[in-house]
Amino acid sequence: MRLAELSQRSGVSAASIKYYLRAGLLPPGRRVGTTTADYDESHIRRLRLIRALIQVGRVPVATVQEVLRHVDDDSLGRTMRLGAALWALPQVPEPDPEDEAVITARREIDRLLETAGWTTARELSTLSPSHRALVVAVATLLRLGYRWDAERLAPYAELMRQTALLDLDYLETHPSESEKAETVVAAALLFEPVLSALHRLAQEEESARRYGL
Amino acid sequence: MRLAELSQRSGVSAASIKYYLRAGLLPPGRRVGTTTADYDESHIRRLRLIRALIQVGRVPVATVQEVLRHVDDDSLGRTMRLGAALWALPQVPEPDPEDEAVITARREIDRLLETAGWTTARELSTLSPSHRALVVAVATLLRLGYRWDAERLAPYAELMRQTALLDLDYLETHPSESEKAETVVAAALLFEPVLSALHRLAQEEESARRYGL
Repeated sequence: MRLAELSQRSGVSAASIKYYLRAGLLPPGRRVGTTTADYDESHIRRLRLIRALIQVGRVPVATVQEVLRHVDDDSLGRTMRLGAALWALPQVPEPDPEDEAVITARREIDRLLETAGWTTARELSTLSPSHRALVVAVATLLRLGYRWDAERLAPYAELMRQTALLDLDYLETHPSESEKAETVVAAALLFEPVLSALHRLAQEEESARRYGL
Repeated sequence: MRLAELSQRSGVSAASIKYYLRAGLLPPGRRVGTTTADYDESHIRRLRLIRALIQVGRVPVATVQEVLRHVDDDSLGRTMRLGAALWALPQVPEPDPEDEAVITARREIDRLLETAGWTTARELSTLSPSHRALVVAVATLLRLGYRWDAERLAPYAELMRQTALLDLDYLETHPSESEKAETVVAAALLFEPVLSALHRLAQEEESARRYGL
């Protein structure tokens, strides 16, 4: 398809598409003349992700470039490719390692991962921004005086593991590796609000079932 | 305990405690003299929640007053009391009812709730901010071209229902109704980041198990 149709089908203005092409966010179309190029479904998909990152996630353009570089990196194995793309997204800053709540949170999370047998999560614990985000979130609870330990976290970790299995099953329905990586990045930004709304709605539903309105 | 000890144990400055007392966020202590009052564990708990709302949730003081009024409202049944306290928190604005993605999202969520037998969620659908948040989140996915329908949402809804059951089981370990309501409000603000970090960590773990690093 030509640029006009790509713009119309993706809902992204022609000016924005040209900007994304120049910035290297969108791969060039196939040249079919001196001034025209031909675009395909992969360009629609990529524009969708760029919109999700920039409009919904408010991710800076330089960061989008880095995320997409990992999405397209055929040299990495699948887990590292998905990981690298996700890890390039803006993340929570490193917490103060001397902070008492941080030390306790880290210890309880270590115990949780050991008991649950999450070996990769333990190996990557100093690298992974997801691990760091968990430490920061648990430390915030502890600092405010809410008692959370490995035992209380364990059943939640197991339900989140089942949620992750659903995510991966869905991922396998996507043919290419870069499409898989695109889906993971979009889900990280767009699906978290769905999960958290479902969680709150379920709390209302189950509370009404147990206690009435 | 006296104000100085309350300040030291809660980590909240004496000046802030006096401000919260004047604003009616913290119930007065038991008077034991013309200038001194006696505080107990319920004041420590309440200060914890006020800090969570103001410092972590960045909730405006007037909203905190409204949330706490519901937390302390003995006239409501348990579900409505928890709901009223949660619903007083800042929420996503009402989406445009004419928007095509919003209409589709609402229809798929209706189908989901019907199939899953979530009768209260259906009855409260025009009132509940959690329902509205779900409509907005699914509409965002649809608008960007990601296909989500009732069937794809269903297994996630079931896992979030099991997560909600864990929440309620924990709630039952709290003796008083106002303590239960306090816990629900704190969890809504502070526990969502824990769940979402556990979810991402589980994705890394399960991806490594399936595909290697």
